[in-house]
Amino acid sequence: MRHFIEPNSFSLEEQLALLDLADRMEADPAPYAHLCDGRILATLFYEPSTRTRLSFESAMLRLGGKTLGFAGAQLSSASKGETVEDTARVVSNYADVIAMRHPKEGAPLRASLSARVPVINAGDGGHAHPSQTMIDLMTIRQRKGRLDHLTIGFCGDLKFGRTVHSLTAALSQFEGNRFVFISPEDLRLPQYVKNESLEPTHQIYKETADLEAELPHLDVLYMTRIQQERFFNEEEYLRLKGCYQLDEALLQKAPQDMPVLHPLPRIDEIKKDVDDDPRAAYFDQVHNGVYIRMAIILALLDIPDPVTGKKVLEA
Amino acid sequence: MRHFIEPNSFSLEEQLALLDLADRMEADPAPYAHLCDGRILATLFYEPSTRTRLSFESAMLRLGGKTLGFAGAQLSSASKGETVEDTARVVSNYADVIAMRHPKEGAPLRASLSARVPVINAGDGGHAHPSQTMIDLMTIRQRKGRLDHLTIGFCGDLKFGRTVHSLTAALSQFEGNRFVFISPEDLRLPQYVKNESLEPTHQIYKETADLEAELPHLDVLYMTRIQQERFFNEEEYLRLKGCYQLDEALLQKAPQDMPVLHPLPRIDEIKKDVDDDPRAAYFDQVHNGVYIRMAIILALLDIPDPVTGKKVLEA
Amino acid sequence: MRHFIEPNSFSLEEQLALLDLADRMEADPAPYAHLCDGRILATLFYEPSTRTRLSFESAMLRLGGKTLGFAGAQLSSASKGETVEDTARVVSNYADVIAMRHPKEGAPLRASLSARVPVINAGDGGHAHPSQTMIDLMTIRQRKGRLDHLTIGFCGDLKFGRTVHSLTAALSQFEGNRFVFISPEDLRLPQYVKNESLEPTHQIYKETADLEAELPHLDVLYMTRIQQERFFNEEEYLRLKGCYQLDEALLQKAPQDMPVLHPLPRIDEIKKDVDDDPRAAYFDQVHNGVYIRMAIILALLDIPDPVTGKKVLEA
Repeated sequence: MRHFIEPNSFSLEEQLALLDLADRMEADPAPYAHLCDGRILATLFYEPSTRTRLSFESAMLRLGGKTLGFAGAQLSSASKGETVEDTARVVSNYADVIAMRHPKEGAPLRASLSARVPVINAGDGGHAHPSQTMIDLMTIRQRKGRLDHLTIGFCGDLKFGRTVHSLTAALSQFEGNRFVFISPEDLRLPQYVKNESLEPTHQIYKETADLEAELPHLDVLYMTRIQQERFFNEEEYLRLKGCYQLDEALLQKAPQDMPVLHPLPRIDEIKKDVDDDPRAAYFDQVHNGVYIRMAIILALLDIPDPVTGKKVLEA
Repeated sequence: MRHFIEPNSFSLEEQLALLDLADRMEADPAPYAHLCDGRILATLFYEPSTRTRLSFESAMLRLGGKTLGFAGAQLSSASKGETVEDTARVVSNYADVIAMRHPKEGAPLRASLSARVPVINAGDGGHAHPSQTMIDLMTIRQRKGRLDHLTIGFCGDLKFGRTVHSLTAALSQFEGNRFVFISPEDLRLPQYVKNESLEPTHQIYKETADLEAELPHLDVLYMTRIQQERFFNEEEYLRLKGCYQLDEALLQKAPQDMPVLHPLPRIDEIKKDVDDDPRAAYFDQVHNGVYIRMAIILALLDIPDPVTGKKVLEA
Repeated sequence: MRHFIEPNSFSLEEQLALLDLADRMEADPAPYAHLCDGRILATLFYEPSTRTRLSFESAMLRLGGKTLGFAGAQLSSASKGETVEDTARVVSNYADVIAMRHPKEGAPLRASLSARVPVINAGDGGHAHPSQTMIDLMTIRQRKGRLDHLTIGFCGDLKFGRTVHSLTAALSQFEGNRFVFISPEDLRLPQYVKNESLEPTHQIYKETADLEAELPHLDVLYMTRIQQERFFNEEEYLRLKGCYQLDEALLQKAPQDMPVLHPLPRIDEIKKDVDDDPRAAYFDQVHNGVYIRMAIILALLDIPDPVTGKKVLEA
């Protein structure tokens, strides 16, 4: 039995097979509509995350399956002091696969050790949110036709932005990519991400505070929200929150085929006038999210693609 | 693509077609049990309203569809500062139709402007709750056989009572109705409702505080709850909350065929001894609610009635 | 129409038929997978209880049915002052069967008086949690092959432990059982449980504080959690919470075929090293819980077992 706790829970080959399956389902979902008839997904969300929870639930429903779960720790048995391990083992009796969101890093991993069914990490604190990373890869590949030899700009909160860390690691698996990290001084990429993801494979990267100067040279721009909930200090948040604002005027400096990604929700770092620009790819990400999660569920339940006969995961 | 934001989002002809469809489904639900197989309803409730949410969910389930959503703002991404427009556009990827409840007037309308799927207003602050209005019309028509030439008494909180305002507007579309507004001085029908709904079509109406005197002359009585949550002042609420209490003794003054409606929940404005009186129609309203919501979903998804071949909405 | 408010809502014969049905479904669930197609279960949980709610929902989903409901009073209309009676009557229009959890004793009984569909008590304060009792019986019978002539040790919080009171009553229906109540002085079995369950049928029982001394003589051990939420006094809770801790070393004193039951969640009254001992039966209970709840739903909906043709409830 396999789990999906971080992107490299799957080999690179498996990750690409997952993207292929998601692409096929997006192109024609009909053959997949009943693959999970009679199966149940449990969404155990120890903190609210509407977007992610509903995306997983929609994925399971679109495969013919059903869902149950909870959407906040106050609704769970956590308040009675139960460990995540016990909860996972218990819920293994109620569902065929578990998607867990937890404010504490490592909780989904701990859950997977006692669960009797596959566990998907749907975000654990500052650690990982691997389905989001797969969505980002799928969207970049759709827009650029490849995942290598790209110059990718990451802009905004690179310190707390978990999706940035994971996507950096994921793109480091491919050849010839160049990373441009654009942030205020106080929100730069942490040293450990450089040590773990960039240095070992000698990635080419630069750090800067100037979005405008970099725009003309990017193949992909990945914007992020300054996340109020990560700041201890309100004043600090207020000082930094409006530091980058991409609007249609600024976007004129960028190449015509440079997609703009954002994991959403956004506040004001991307203005609404960008939404109608063909480069806006952040609603594509939401759309792709359902297919990625369908693919993850099929992979972990070891259900082959009825069209190709192939499974995502190797034996 | 059409939305259902207020009763006159649908033409009068469409409203009547909706009532007809609801009546047919109530009489024989079997032919409709699989019309929404594979479809998903999202219930986005930014404030709790169990009755309305469960009614919409039951409607979708009884059509063969599935549901997902949230039941309170603390469970949503609203806490991260996302706009209703972005949420609606995002959720359009997860569901085929959205029912939205929001404490702020106009939120469902704003959602409908960015949504890629139909949006149903499931109540927005003091503004509208159009499915409730359709339920009221369906129930009156079932009981009285018509929606015109009726004397309708509205009793209780006519100031904040959104359902009263909407039903007044809806009944003003029909000929020969007479409106009797029964309330304490402080909870009278707002001037703007008179200006918008009663004056333009020269409706006949009167205002009074005396329920008992009016009872013998009414064709329909619509009771409402004094809603604590609308008062800023606890003292004010306590003074007014018990101002009308309909019990079986008082009901003896009313005609034998005068249905008593109430949008529920009730506190003590209708005593339990009325429940067994054949004139009690408020549980009929709950029952009809599921069929009205089934009809709204079918209308917006543009699914024809398999029995008659007709669609509710004109092209 | 029947309800399941406490274990003896069903006759002893019916209880045994329920256990038989649950056993058959556990052995082979396939013939039961579509018995509730098109049916809806409402889970009305006025206090959170993830385990119980998800178990009921999983049961209904595994029968082919669907679910709706709420998972905490703050999400319900209770905050608008609606009575449980009105809510139950309203929800009867949305669902075919109701499972209700409520902090107040007697609430599910009151609900059943106005409901138009069967009501299952999913726990009401200190009163009853009858599906848990059925789970306990099923698990004991699976492990020991019988429900009579057993020496059962109950250990921990016997004062507030609702499951202990119910299981004591249930086992008193069978011949030749002996009860050993193991607790600190302050958490002894209440006198009313003795009066109601033990005295009328002259059951043999003893009370002690010494778990270790009793272990070698038990056929079954039922452990319970010291429930913080039942204490008014934090200090009192802290003094008592660690009073019994069963670990693998202590378990060596017990017979090799003495199952250890616990209604879960546990804190530290059973150590993790016991989990791998074949005597650990508490995860069996969770597993059995889904089948018991499937059986209760089928019983109340009066759906016969397609394999045997038998119904659980007598006409």
